[in-house]
Amino acid sequence: MSILIKDVLLEGEQTDIYIEENRISEIGARVEADFVIDGTDKVAFPGLINTHTHSAMTLLRSYADDLKLQEWLENKIWPLEAKLTENDVYLGSKLACLEMIKSGTTCFNDMYWFMKGTARAVEEMGLRAVLAEAFIDLFKEDMAEEMKGKTKDFISYVRGMDNERITPALGPHAIYTVSKESLGWIKDFAEKEDLLIHFHLAETEKENTDCKNMHGKRPVPFLDNIGFLSHRLVAAHSIWLTGEEIKILAEKGVKISHNPTSNLKLASGIIPYQKMRDSGSTISLGTDGCASNNNLDMFEEMKIATIAQKGFVKDPTVMPAIEALKIATLGGGKALGLKIGEIRVGNLADIILIDLKRPELTPRHNLISNLVYSANGSCVDTTICNGKILMQNREIADEKIILENAQSVAEDLVSR
Amino acid sequence: MSILIKDVLLEGEQTDIYIEENRISEIGARVEADFVIDGTDKVAFPGLINTHTHSAMTLLRSYADDLKLQEWLENKIWPLEAKLTENDVYLGSKLACLEMIKSGTTCFNDMYWFMKGTARAVEEMGLRAVLAEAFIDLFKEDMAEEMKGKTKDFISYVRGMDNERITPALGPHAIYTVSKESLGWIKDFAEKEDLLIHFHLAETEKENTDCKNMHGKRPVPFLDNIGFLSHRLVAAHSIWLTGEEIKILAEKGVKISHNPTSNLKLASGIIPYQKMRDSGSTISLGTDGCASNNNLDMFEEMKIATIAQKGFVKDPTVMPAIEALKIATLGGGKALGLKIGEIRVGNLADIILIDLKRPELTPRHNLISNLVYSANGSCVDTTICNGKILMQNREIADEKIILENAQSVAEDLVSR
Repeated sequence: MSILIKDVLLEGEQTDIYIEENRISEIGARVEADFVIDGTDKVAFPGLINTHTHSAMTLLRSYADDLKLQEWLENKIWPLEAKLTENDVYLGSKLACLEMIKSGTTCFNDMYWFMKGTARAVEEMGLRAVLAEAFIDLFKEDMAEEMKGKTKDFISYVRGMDNERITPALGPHAIYTVSKESLGWIKDFAEKEDLLIHFHLAETEKENTDCKNMHGKRPVPFLDNIGFLSHRLVAAHSIWLTGEEIKILAEKGVKISHNPTSNLKLASGIIPYQKMRDSGSTISLGTDGCASNNNLDMFEEMKIATIAQKGFVKDPTVMPAIEALKIATLGGGKALGLKIGEIRVGNLADIILIDLKRPELTPRHNLISNLVYSANGSCVDTTICNGKILMQNREIADEKIILENAQSVAEDLVSR
Repeated sequence: MSILIKDVLLEGEQTDIYIEENRISEIGARVEADFVIDGTDKVAFPGLINTHTHSAMTLLRSYADDLKLQEWLENKIWPLEAKLTENDVYLGSKLACLEMIKSGTTCFNDMYWFMKGTARAVEEMGLRAVLAEAFIDLFKEDMAEEMKGKTKDFISYVRGMDNERITPALGPHAIYTVSKESLGWIKDFAEKEDLLIHFHLAETEKENTDCKNMHGKRPVPFLDNIGFLSHRLVAAHSIWLTGEEIKILAEKGVKISHNPTSNLKLASGIIPYQKMRDSGSTISLGTDGCASNNNLDMFEEMKIATIAQKGFVKDPTVMPAIEALKIATLGGGKALGLKIGEIRVGNLADIILIDLKRPELTPRHNLISNLVYSANGSCVDTTICNGKILMQNREIADEKIILENAQSVAEDLVSR
């Protein structure tokens, strides 16, 4: 199947974008296509890339807010997660995919439980995703063995799906939930199987202190020492880092996922963005799960990223709009090692069309500023992923039933 | 004219809201009405109240971002504002009203230039507003006289309109742009004419230092000394305050307008929210103008208010969702001295209906959390102000022409 997006604004010019199968095959030349989209009054943009989320946590949206981190986790989130089933995860992930499609995200990086459910949801909903079964052993050998089994099983499952949109990955949760031995196993397995590793790093000050107490080193030197730091690693949060640690992460090619809304809402801290950028690190953007955000709107995330950074470092010139946009697109593509995040010939056809005839996008002295500071996900008119149209005129088939199923399974979950 | 909103969710219960003329006249009793709105799958909420904006600055949206405050003002904003005409302000304010109606704001507090233009826009668009002609004398006597004339002229103009939705007010810009003598005149004139005063207070650290250099006192003691602090004063920003100053503001009944997005984006600082709240101050919420936000979405403003506060004071329990909602509704009504901000019998009929069938509002473990942390302005389906329906199904007459006029006048403005 081929698609022609006609007369659309792209990088400041009116042009046409031609999609063949799942790739962008021509820009600027108008050719015959199976399907034509009128791009008038719209701007084409690469689909946004959410490099850290737990999509099924949509089910926990608004279940627990305004609490201290430990209370939130121990009394609210973990007890509920203990009752989760694969079907819950499937229905929660369907809701997440729906929300992402409607807000212009075409690819996401997810680590959670019962991820076969998420894989099925992604397959059905048409998005692109990198999926990892969470790995937590709580420093117990039997639990580690069980997790290794689950991890291998999930990797085989995804490979068996043979879906070019879904990439399996490894999901060691964090330094305070996974043993040194298991982290070593993960690292070796990732190399052997050529997989990305999705990990929470240096989210809180406490994490660093605890790590020092347990391992005699702060997280980054500890992980460096066991060879865990590499280009395979996507490290979420990455807040509490020294200048030296930032340099080590950059040298090892570790990819950062910045999660500003979650970091503010849980009062975790703020990422040392400028130092990271200056170190040459790949920085990408993620919403985190809906229990700590509470939505998956990457437009909102871009705005919060830049204004929070300006506010915290007391400099309004920090992270200008274009940089916020880059971490949500190019940075995401680099972090996940996929040819996405930029509309160029040869790249995967993950494209969104933004409706320019909106009050909040008028006037348009600077389109990039408007997208970062004024837009939200509802400005997206059309979402295309892997050369397939997932939404046009903001309409998605099955929206109603996805909402109903999610609402009822969420109610059931909290009453179990 | 009467309106019945049927089967709508209100404070956790399905009920009916009956509006007669411009008031909420009954809740819970179903009566005959001229017009019936089906409230199924919607929640009724008081229209949001934006207590600090410069609506016509929509025209400057995306014109100047990511700059230092002084450079931003001196090289970008002020030179452009010097070319403004009343017609520009009229068209920019129409755009702002459109954006507010579409994002659920029913009342705003505005201080700017050529405010007759804004008054005309508000009259046509159906919103409620408190409007003040900006007063800046730069410590020059002739300029002060000119401003007094403009101020009086604007007050007479608005009173001549005889529109119950539009309240005139006084707009002394700030301590660094208005002389002590003029502040004294404003205070006396406000008392004589029974008017609110809209003012920028303690937005930056520099403002306080400069004030001390010029007047020998910090802003709050200085203003207190000349009798400027009273229940008539709505003080925007109000960031750089000592504990003692917060107490003085509370004692004098000064109303605070908190503007978190602008404060972060311009790196001005963060409001001492908890101390203010504990002092018993009336705290309300505002977006500031579109040159420093860059939209007028009060849902986004609520979220940014609470997560920024949590992040800055390093405590996720600070400003829970319900408090964010209160400053955007009840706090706004109190700040502006209007019977709005709460859906109760006898109050003015400023009501919004929010569409609950949205992915980001599903599931609904806690409606308030969803509205503050997950929603944005596009969740608003219906906007009613003063008993008139301004938007239903997100449709507004003349939207297209308002956007076109604003785009073309904004282009003209920057090329003058």
